[in-house]
Amino acid sequence: MSITKHEIRPGAYYDSVVLMQLQRALVALDGVEDAGVVMSTPTNLALLSESGLLPAEARLAKPDDLIIVVRAESEAAASAAISQVDDLLARRRSTQSEFQPRSLESAAKTLPRARWALVSVPGRHAAGVARNALDLNLHVFLYSDNVSLEDEVELKKTAGARGLLVMGPDCGTAVINGIGLGFANRTRRGSIGLVGASGTGLQAVSAAVHNLGGGISHAIGTGTRDLTGEVGAITALQGLELLARDDETEVIVLVSKPPEAQVAARLLAAAQNAGKPIVVDFIGYPPPARTLGNISFATNLSEAAEIALKLSNQEPRAIEYEPPQYATPDTHHATRTTQFADRNSQSTNRDPQFANQYVRGLFSGGTLAYETMLGLQACLAPLYSNVPIHETQRLPDPTQSRAHTIVDMGADEFTVGRLHPMIDNETRLRRLRQEAEDPEVGLILLDVVLGEGAHPDPAAELAPAIAAIKEDQEIEVMVILIGTEEDPQDSARQAEQLESAGARIYRGPMEAVAEINRRFARSVAGPPAPVSLEVLREPLAAINVGLDSFYESLKSQGAEAVQVAWKPPAGGDEKLMAILSKMKGNYSSGSESDAD
Amino acid sequence: MSITKHEIRPGAYYDSVVLMQLQRALVALDGVEDAGVVMSTPTNLALLSESGLLPAEARLAKPDDLIIVVRAESEAAASAAISQVDDLLARRRSTQSEFQPRSLESAAKTLPRARWALVSVPGRHAAGVARNALDLNLHVFLYSDNVSLEDEVELKKTAGARGLLVMGPDCGTAVINGIGLGFANRTRRGSIGLVGASGTGLQAVSAAVHNLGGGISHAIGTGTRDLTGEVGAITALQGLELLARDDETEVIVLVSKPPEAQVAARLLAAAQNAGKPIVVDFIGYPPPARTLGNISFATNLSEAAEIALKLSNQEPRAIEYEPPQYATPDTHHATRTTQFADRNSQSTNRDPQFANQYVRGLFSGGTLAYETMLGLQACLAPLYSNVPIHETQRLPDPTQSRAHTIVDMGADEFTVGRLHPMIDNETRLRRLRQEAEDPEVGLILLDVVLGEGAHPDPAAELAPAIAAIKEDQEIEVMVILIGTEEDPQDSARQAEQLESAGARIYRGPMEAVAEINRRFARSVAGPPAPVSLEVLREPLAAINVGLDSFYESLKSQGAEAVQVAWKPPAGGDEKLMAILSKMKGNYSSGSESDAD
Repeated sequence: MSITKHEIRPGAYYDSVVLMQLQRALVALDGVEDAGVVMSTPTNLALLSESGLLPAEARLAKPDDLIIVVRAESEAAASAAISQVDDLLARRRSTQSEFQPRSLESAAKTLPRARWALVSVPGRHAAGVARNALDLNLHVFLYSDNVSLEDEVELKKTAGARGLLVMGPDCGTAVINGIGLGFANRTRRGSIGLVGASGTGLQAVSAAVHNLGGGISHAIGTGTRDLTGEVGAITALQGLELLARDDETEVIVLVSKPPEAQVAARLLAAAQNAGKPIVVDFIGYPPPARTLGNISFATNLSEAAEIALKLSNQEPRAIEYEPPQYATPDTHHATRTTQFADRNSQSTNRDPQFANQYVRGLFSGGTLAYETMLGLQACLAPLYSNVPIHETQRLPDPTQSRAHTIVDMGADEFTVGRLHPMIDNETRLRRLRQEAEDPEVGLILLDVVLGEGAHPDPAAELAPAIAAIKEDQEIEVMVILIGTEEDPQDSARQAEQLESAGARIYRGPMEAVAEINRRFARSVAGPPAPVSLEVLREPLAAINVGLDSFYESLKSQGAEAVQVAWKPPAGGDEKLMAILSKMKGNYSSGSESDAD
Repeated sequence: MSITKHEIRPGAYYDSVVLMQLQRALVALDGVEDAGVVMSTPTNLALLSESGLLPAEARLAKPDDLIIVVRAESEAAASAAISQVDDLLARRRSTQSEFQPRSLESAAKTLPRARWALVSVPGRHAAGVARNALDLNLHVFLYSDNVSLEDEVELKKTAGARGLLVMGPDCGTAVINGIGLGFANRTRRGSIGLVGASGTGLQAVSAAVHNLGGGISHAIGTGTRDLTGEVGAITALQGLELLARDDETEVIVLVSKPPEAQVAARLLAAAQNAGKPIVVDFIGYPPPARTLGNISFATNLSEAAEIALKLSNQEPRAIEYEPPQYATPDTHHATRTTQFADRNSQSTNRDPQFANQYVRGLFSGGTLAYETMLGLQACLAPLYSNVPIHETQRLPDPTQSRAHTIVDMGADEFTVGRLHPMIDNETRLRRLRQEAEDPEVGLILLDVVLGEGAHPDPAAELAPAIAAIKEDQEIEVMVILIGTEEDPQDSARQAEQLESAGARIYRGPMEAVAEINRRFARSVAGPPAPVSLEVLREPLAAINVGLDSFYESLKSQGAEAVQVAWKPPAGGDEKLMAILSKMKGNYSSGSESDAD
């Protein structure tokens, strides 16, 4: 018989990482079956209710009240758990020995050198805090989402007029003068500057630059909505202009999903005026050419990094680009020569024949999922996703895969009331097992994003799950690993754990995509009856029915031709034609009238 | 006082080129003011009525009746004109001395070597004629449009099962064994094979290949609907497979607008299995990478030709591609080194400053217009067209330009009841004058497509019109000239005439686009208040409001940071917060509730 106990602490705000840690600590206690520790937002209360953990009194709680619920085997165990809450919180608090000012104003007095405010309070409070920061003449890294578009426009206009940056809202990643803000890979310093509306896009490019031997000057995030017509790329334009003046930055990489048309025109014009080589990866944007003045268009994130690297330490001009090696029938792996690709290639002859089975991609990085969609749609169909390129690819229920599916598990529908999958692997581990149980699945594709802000050791949780799957099923697992050996998690160590579990490691979405597309292409059949080559080998001879000029053209080119003195059947009488047609039995009923 | 006379000839079928020639001959007669010579389709009758040329009796005419109307200054002149109709028609007929069989069957007996039927009869008759041809075991080049989708699918399935090709309906261009069908440029024979759903796209690539020194093996047109899901690329897949087996073909270029997702996947898989290098230009399709196995993705038609040329005479593998030279501030012209670009570059210092004026493009080639849109949208906004890339760019009334506009004058709305602008310049000449009268217009862009089937001397009509415009206005005129020196019109002679009239000549849409984009980029302003470079130069110091983990991350990276012991204002009480906010006067009313 289970006993449920709870406690509500009005106005006791803690951030979601702290709450997750408390919840896990409570569940780990003796006799505790389940626990919930959440701020009392309507969504969180609904989630508690689903788990059978919602006490009746909680319905009166306010969004900023903390609610702690414990279900245990006994009254004693439940009470013991609740009584340890303060100890557990204090244990965490004790790591923060410094004085904590209670307001931005007093924080600014404490650290007068501060030029930045990092804001990650709940969205409904975030615009106010950001405005407060701008009033203190601080640049703002605004991680919070759920900030209104009106607030974003107003904040950015205010900031723009004062020469201040507002990176975000919903900005996941930035690197300023070597320091990562939010989620960011540790990279060496260098000459490549980034501006990006895409968090994992910035991470993928900066990690790739580092892994290719280059370095990052600064990475300026803009937030996902910056490139909409409403916001007009205020932050992206500021960022471009700032990096254009920065001596340390030799090449600028601009990465985002395709902006609205007017915004794209504005940005590309500004890029042409930057006086430095610019690499543009508007993921899924069809470029007019490989280069446009000083702009080089990249087709994917890995390539953006490669082009940038080749352009650095050069004159500001477009690159003479050598495309990467591609897979031939003899060398199966399209991955670049990295430490991982070399290891993979040893298993070439053991490729499972998964061509008639489905691919399921479970992503934590939205941009990584989107770029994967972009690549796989070239060869896999039908293909579904909650981040579709075309609306026809939209997955009706993101919790249920169908055919080939790529899921961004960092999307709102998965993270409401939960931590992001880059921090918390739980939801993804559950989905991983769900996909593995589907007999139609032949390949599972995961991303693992390392760096500041991310889970401290994702492989420790993912590798055992992968090993368990591979023990039971003939399923291949590919992992796109975004990270550097300088990251707190150490990418080499992560890769080793994942490979030991049987996963193949790729350094970017397109490396994995190339491998998948190559294999699927093999399974496609040709046309039913091949056309005889004689048609191409014999001198052309033709009968012309219709325009005299075509007949004359054939003759003038030296071809044999006959012109038919064609007249409409039945003198063009449509009724009579229809009767004749029925009598002959070979005239289509679907013909349309012609206006010509 | 004008007199109108007419004659109706029931069931007297003539093709539209013949009728245009008769009409022009009548108008040229002494005393004739206007004339109409059309088949009596409803659309043509409506057009006659608009011109005040519709006799009352014509309303009873059937679509295949010929109607001839003449308006003259006198009864005598009108009668004289009508009486000359047979002579004028006979004069044309006399050029065709050969025997003309009256049916496909007898034509096939006359020319038993014929493997091809060219079908260009009115659309409502075309499917029947094509079916007839397939029954005679002929491959079909089906130029006619207005053939139903059902008929197309049925024809192609029938043909596919028999190893026959149906190129079309609405197929403008093919080259088989050195002979151009429909509209086709004359090129030298060579090792590059083409498959394309786009008529002017095939022309642009084949002309560019020739002009770069290469040659064409065969060019297989598919018709514009072949790559839809309904048709499933039957002809394109046949063509790919056929050229893959053809020894003469070393490289295959596949050109079309982006196919539907499933069709793209099928085609790209087939391309990967072709065993030869393939260059894909799905105009406006975002490629997953520069290469995918043996596939090289081109970003535009000119580039497709360049890549193909570099790949020919090589192993079947992806190219190590060098992008073309781009414009630097010192060398203004992005055009390739052609005879024309060299001449243009001499006028570099006289670039009109048209940056604040509008560009108007008047195209005869649909694909050329579309590719131009694709290129210009990178820098010009707002940009409108009747062949928009995005629906927001759709021109509400194709007869009226607004802002920057690209018009495909070969689109249905311009050609109903009229000849295509590649054959008949009249509509384009009128629009050219209309645009030139608009004081907001700074640049007019035209295409001129040469080759078999096209107007015998377009420059003779366009050059005087361009000269007249440039005499009166400060308007620049650019011409995209698609042709070879082997074309009946001789591209060098055409270019010379157009240049003498003051036009700049470009060899492909993207060459002109690059020049336009480069100039417009100069006019774009930077952000209002530049961000001070100090923010990038000083060691980062930040105030963190929100997630503790961000603070810890900053510290671990060695940055100075202060954590604010933030609590929701008013303990999270939303009503109280709103009151406080109003009192302080600086809290946004637009903030949303947060579910996190």
